[in-house]
Amino acid sequence: MKVLSLFRRQSSAPVARERLQVLLAHERAVIGGRSDLVSVLREEILAVIAKHVSVDREKIRVKMDRDGSVATLEVDIEIRAPSSELALSA
Amino acid sequence: MKVLSLFRRQSSAPVARERLQVLLAHERAVIGGRSDLVSVLREEILAVIAKHVSVDREKIRVKMDRDGSVATLEVDIEIRAPSSELALSA
Repeated sequence: MKVLSLFRRQSSAPVARERLQVLLAHERAVIGGRSDLVSVLREEILAVIAKHVSVDREKIRVKMDRDGSVATLEVDIEIRAPSSELALSA
Repeated sequence: MKVLSLFRRQSSAPVARERLQVLLAHERAVIGGRSDLVSVLREEILAVIAKHVSVDREKIRVKMDRDGSVATLEVDIEIRAPSSELALSA
């Protein structure tokens, strides 16, 4: 599965950490036809994630790109693993 | 750029439609250590998107996968292009 291998590619050594990756791509019918949906969704999706996991703002990497009619957003988040999980993995 | 080519791969003929793709991957530190974050985020992210674009629920394709410690979610949404954009692209 292509998508999975993309995520796997950046896998690190098996340490006790969690990662969440979000990729967003917006393909517009007409270039310039709509305000930047990806920028608008970026903060709201980050807020949704922060509601559910403990995120260190410094551990969030965000990359935005635009190529013609396609705008993309990549967000890579390192999640603080609960201490019980750290204990289990030791 | 690998991510971009992934999205491009499914590009269709240049008709007046918009698409939004969301890929989510959650890599857990410990298998079974946390409830299913991807499932939890799925509905909330869809709700955030629906606030900003006109989405036909039948035009949403959702695919969830799990492989060991990595859970992935793919969402492919066809957006109704505003009629002004349709007119422009005719």
